Amino acid sequence: MTRDFNEENATEAVLERMAHAKDARFREVMSSVVRHLHAVAREVEPTPEEWMAAIQFLTATGKMCDDKRQEFILLSDTLGLSMLLDAIWHRKPAGATESTVLGPFHVAGAPSRENGDNICLDGKGEPCVMSGRVLSADGKPLAGASLDVWQTNDDGFYDVQQPDEQPGMNLRGRFTSDAEGKFWFRTVRPVSYPIPDDGPVGRMLKKMGRHPWRPAHVHFIVSMPAFETVTTHLFVEGDEYLESDAVFGVKGSLIKEFVRDESDVEAKKWGVSAPFWRTEHDFVLAAAGAQS
Amino acid sequence: MTRDFNEENATEAVLERMAHAKDARFREVMSSVVRHLHAVAREVEPTPEEWMAAIQFLTATGKMCDDKRQEFILLSDTLGLSMLLDAIWHRKPAGATESTVLGPFHVAGAPSRENGDNICLDGKGEPCVMSGRVLSADGKPLAGASLDVWQTNDDGFYDVQQPDEQPGMNLRGRFTSDAEGKFWFRTVRPVSYPIPDDGPVGRMLKKMGRHPWRPAHVHFIVSMPAFETVTTHLFVEGDEYLESDAVFGVKGSLIKEFVRDESDVEAKKWGVSAPFWRTEHDFVLAAAGAQS
Repeated sequence: MTRDFNEENATEAVLERMAHAKDARFREVMSSVVRHLHAVAREVEPTPEEWMAAIQFLTATGKMCDDKRQEFILLSDTLGLSMLLDAIWHRKPAGATESTVLGPFHVAGAPSRENGDNICLDGKGEPCVMSGRVLSADGKPLAGASLDVWQTNDDGFYDVQQPDEQPGMNLRGRFTSDAEGKFWFRTVRPVSYPIPDDGPVGRMLKKMGRHPWRPAHVHFIVSMPAFETVTTHLFVEGDEYLESDAVFGVKGSLIKEFVRDESDVEAKKWGVSAPFWRTEHDFVLAAAGAQS
Repeated sequence: MTRDFNEENATEAVLERMAHAKDARFREVMSSVVRHLHAVAREVEPTPEEWMAAIQFLTATGKMCDDKRQEFILLSDTLGLSMLLDAIWHRKPAGATESTVLGPFHVAGAPSRENGDNICLDGKGEPCVMSGRVLSADGKPLAGASLDVWQTNDDGFYDVQQPDEQPGMNLRGRFTSDAEGKFWFRTVRPVSYPIPDDGPVGRMLKKMGRHPWRPAHVHFIVSMPAFETVTTHLFVEGDEYLESDAVFGVKGSLIKEFVRDESDVEAKKWGVSAPFWRTEHDFVLAAAGAQS
């Protein structure tokens, strides 16, 4: 125990003060936080004004949070922390579908749909057919897998962001793979959209020289008993924000060609009108417990 | 620019995204923050539940802040960051009085007092006489130096914490050193007190196995034209919290003997009644620009 706190012993003095923490894991986590917090202070030697700006930024970020907005999660997302943790949490065997961020717009209890159903309830946007299979890591089709799907409408908003303007459960649905592991459904081609940038995190992005846009994507949670659930997106090849997703969610294996199809015959087969967009993806699930 | 964010390239990908920040200093600071934030994630590999607990802790800390309470400053103080920065900001020549945290209870515009005045307006506590000199680093008395003094009352609260219970400006005053550099005033012996511990920071301290107490002290800001202003405390030797100050503010050179004096003659000299406490301290100011 020191009775003389100074620049040299500062970090050790704080760590030593946690020696009696009963929760060893809490002590481990906070020791890492303290060491790195002090390291930032020593590296950048913030001025009193910079320290106060940091205090005010964190305070404003907390004040921005309510039951519909979580600005600290947005901060975690935009600093790449959420996706780094996602990578740590889902070290999958090679070949299994990669995961990406859940995001704040998933809604539990989306309606069950039949393969072929259209999840677009507001009639906006360009028709799109998504199809594919759910497979095990050794390539066997998985029948009865659940695919929970959600995306924004053509204006770039999720239904929950526009409760007065979009039908409830617009662009959401839960599908089940058939006996051959296949799934297919109708939707609209997804669009890119900005994350909420009218708060402290938006101001931070601006000062970093960054934009708030996410490349167009459709969310999936694919699950099956005895397999690892995967939470992921499919992205649209060619989107201008694939290299600069505001939340760093893009993985190369999740970028898909969306093909424009002008064939009336094909359109009729899927129950849409030409021209329409098509994309296919096979989700590969790791066996439960197979995470490395 | 990557279109495949993963555990290996995560940190570089985020840093690269700031390449176009116009403010080079902001980029420098945020690069350090991102590198160390990611380092914490890699070191401790927080679970999803731990990550969410951190999000909720930061949110609650922001929500706790209002015009009278700054919970993020309390967090900075209790993690030793404020005192580490204080040390970085005030690298003084050897011999100059050491600084410590300002704390949240300084009030600008405390009343000017004459040497010998009593700053205790509520009549509580044990009488105490503080005296000493203000000197330059080469030992010359500094006449006309300002000493802005504040402390809690005998119940452990600053006047601003109890606006309805304490007289305004209780235990505050600005003194001026005389022709020989001397100052002296009457107050009460300071007491130890807990920092506000009914919020997220208090819960953190508890989980760390720490108490919220600060050892008894009197605050000073000593200033003089052409000299560096010093913001500091004097602590009471023997206080049980000197080795465990909740905000790490103690420096050995600031701990003073408070001597109990039972002499009626001495008491009469200072205008108090025996028994009373006495302590002396000479403040040494560095010449302006002399910070190393």
